Amino acid sequence: MVTRSTIMDTNSFRDDYGALSASDSALVRRREASLGGAYRLFYRRPVHLVRGQGQYLWDADGVKYLDVYNNVASVGHCHPHVVEAIARQAATLNTHTRYLSEIIVDYTERLKKTLPAQIDRAMYMCTGSEANDFAIRVAQQYSGGEGIIVSKEAYHGTSALTSGVSPALGSGQPITATARLVDAPDRYRTGVDDIGPWFAQRIQEQIDDMAAHGVRFAGVLADSIFSSDGVLPDPVGYLQDAVDVVHRNGGVFIADEVQPGFARTGDAFWGFARHGVVPDLVTMGKPMGNGIPVSAVVGKSDVLAAFSDHLPYFNTFGGNPVAMAAAQGVLDVIEQEGLQEHARVTGAALRAELAGLMDAHPSIGDVRGAGLFTGLELVADRGTREPDGALALDVIERLRDRHVLTSVAGPHGNVLKLRPPLPFDTSDIDWLVGAIDEVLTEVSR
Amino acid sequence: MVTRSTIMDTNSFRDDYGALSASDSALVRRREASLGGAYRLFYRRPVHLVRGQGQYLWDADGVKYLDVYNNVASVGHCHPHVVEAIARQAATLNTHTRYLSEIIVDYTERLKKTLPAQIDRAMYMCTGSEANDFAIRVAQQYSGGEGIIVSKEAYHGTSALTSGVSPALGSGQPITATARLVDAPDRYRTGVDDIGPWFAQRIQEQIDDMAAHGVRFAGVLADSIFSSDGVLPDPVGYLQDAVDVVHRNGGVFIADEVQPGFARTGDAFWGFARHGVVPDLVTMGKPMGNGIPVSAVVGKSDVLAAFSDHLPYFNTFGGNPVAMAAAQGVLDVIEQEGLQEHARVTGAALRAELAGLMDAHPSIGDVRGAGLFTGLELVADRGTREPDGALALDVIERLRDRHVLTSVAGPHGNVLKLRPPLPFDTSDIDWLVGAIDEVLTEVSR
Repeated sequence: MVTRSTIMDTNSFRDDYGALSASDSALVRRREASLGGAYRLFYRRPVHLVRGQGQYLWDADGVKYLDVYNNVASVGHCHPHVVEAIARQAATLNTHTRYLSEIIVDYTERLKKTLPAQIDRAMYMCTGSEANDFAIRVAQQYSGGEGIIVSKEAYHGTSALTSGVSPALGSGQPITATARLVDAPDRYRTGVDDIGPWFAQRIQEQIDDMAAHGVRFAGVLADSIFSSDGVLPDPVGYLQDAVDVVHRNGGVFIADEVQPGFARTGDAFWGFARHGVVPDLVTMGKPMGNGIPVSAVVGKSDVLAAFSDHLPYFNTFGGNPVAMAAAQGVLDVIEQEGLQEHARVTGAALRAELAGLMDAHPSIGDVRGAGLFTGLELVADRGTREPDGALALDVIERLRDRHVLTSVAGPHGNVLKLRPPLPFDTSDIDWLVGAIDEVLTEVSR
Repeated sequence: MVTRSTIMDTNSFRDDYGALSASDSALVRRREASLGGAYRLFYRRPVHLVRGQGQYLWDADGVKYLDVYNNVASVGHCHPHVVEAIARQAATLNTHTRYLSEIIVDYTERLKKTLPAQIDRAMYMCTGSEANDFAIRVAQQYSGGEGIIVSKEAYHGTSALTSGVSPALGSGQPITATARLVDAPDRYRTGVDDIGPWFAQRIQEQIDDMAAHGVRFAGVLADSIFSSDGVLPDPVGYLQDAVDVVHRNGGVFIADEVQPGFARTGDAFWGFARHGVVPDLVTMGKPMGNGIPVSAVVGKSDVLAAFSDHLPYFNTFGGNPVAMAAAQGVLDVIEQEGLQEHARVTGAALRAELAGLMDAHPSIGDVRGAGLFTGLELVADRGTREPDGALALDVIERLRDRHVLTSVAGPHGNVLKLRPPLPFDTSDIDWLVGAIDEVLTEVSR
């Protein structure tokens, strides 16, 4: 049985069929009779979606929602340019990488232009989990070690290997014995301003602990904006100390760009690039194909060679022409619509508006972010910074009732994760901030 | 470095740029400068494909190829019905399973109609590797054991967990310490006619060996047509003994249907159903979406619940509306075009023609298969059955020169794996069998 506390702590449906329309209730019951019990629906009153366009979604009753959550459809739901690229390629050729094909080479050359020169080889998979699973194995081969370090609320995937380094999955999922967790570089909760050296020191302590247990260090795997740890972007540059300590200890630094990649942070195309660091391996996924499953590991050729010199790797669907066409389409749109700069400017404007709510709403403890990735931290007391996860859950349910879709993050579940499709615009700021203002007023009564 | 013997033993490009056109040579060099070293191209002279339709592919020079290898585009390359389904859904909505959506429920209800009644719950992923990775973890949770048994030349995936039970990856890839290998149920090589009890006995021996090492048995993971072991379909029903021995020992039987599923074997919709067995878990992938990455684990609800009661599982792209639309389209085409019966009849006709070559060509040791999955075993001596892998490699290169695409399988790499898209028809039998006849005549001179 799922323990009640698990369900009650998360953004999920709680078997209250009475809250649903008759047709949705029937659909949920059909769903439960055919899908595995691991499936969860968001919200106590799930949203039944039938259409998407840009940053908007529509439900079965024709109600329009503002999407402030989904980073897969990063250039906008059903973007016509990407849809057209997928349809055209699907009608032409879709086979695997053991035949010669232009499109995978063209895409890779283009992707490399967004990356530091040292990162010059790509491998393609279908999901972020597959990318991280492979990257960990490469880091282990290259370093000769086994031990992987991740942050305390990290999420890196759903395979056996990546689940073992994903503490966000909860206490039912054991952490791999040779893995270690470090506190996330959270300036707000630690009160440490110069968080770079502090974080590097935490990493060194865990490397030392591995050594004490006879485990050889392989590397650090880190989401460069620490999404599931609560969105931790600042100060720019703080990751350099972490990369340095990894290299001093013979390890591999893997930047997991599944969340911050593809222009989301505005300041740079990649989350790691915002910090000016050069990882050894970079993993990417979700927004890469705007919904078509495609992911990649890109890295330094000598690091990747440590694996490929000894082991084969072939992913049937990885890098297939339709996936590459979708990925090309995404790069086209980011460039043509100037989405990186748009994310920078719009994200800053959003955070300014949210910060403006702090006077009226003492439950807002912190507003932080980069580009269109914003964390809004809700607290029971601004002085003690006591996290208020129950409030955050209540707020996202009430936002859902105002047709604004978002969710929560962070170890206490008290950080609203505001991560809309990149076309999110000024008028959407009004909708979102207005709704948050109303909801916080409502709950404080 | 990849050892020379590894490369020389496989169907792959061997750095002979001189054999290529100037433009292909340039493309291969660009490819090598941008993709990881683990990528391999089929054939000493790789095929540069630009278009596909039905069972045919065309290269950059407009040359038409008969595809006798690819089971991903199972209902035919670029089938217009599937392409249209993908394009329509991609333009409408493509998000994840935490919102309520009709299409995943509709598809699952339809998929369940192809399955035994006891197999009543589905989980969706993107690749066969992800499906097998999850299924192994479910089997371990359900059984309380860890030990997995696979056949000696099995291939089950490319994640860390599935690679450890994929001896086909070669000696560079260690087999998981708690896993065990069994000889495949190969009547031709063992000379054992009643292969069911023989195979069950091999499994029992490995379960006993696990016990001797203090490893608790979790289950058997088996491709029900043993593709990479050399295509082992007969006699129908032989898997029942294996399923029984697994259950007697408290384990889970996982049928890996990535290869034989979706009507390929003609006799049944699923490879396991040909044998009349009911697995506990069934994994499926490659042909499921005709090229769109989609895979699934379906299983008995109590077996799946052993996992979901304790652990979360969410796959961002798994079961997304575009993947489900592609998968719906595939079921439509199989039904509307009667592809299961077509596979049964056409496959039998193909094997009759191939058997007819045996008088003229003593190097053909055995012809076997089910539906449109055929293994043609090449031997140095029909009496001793000595496998001739070098001949098989030579034959597939010469077939490629006659614009027939296939590859090899089996522990000795001497079995031609004839596995065309299902629309493969009578006229294609003439092309294929004629080409094999010519090639075998040529090499015997």
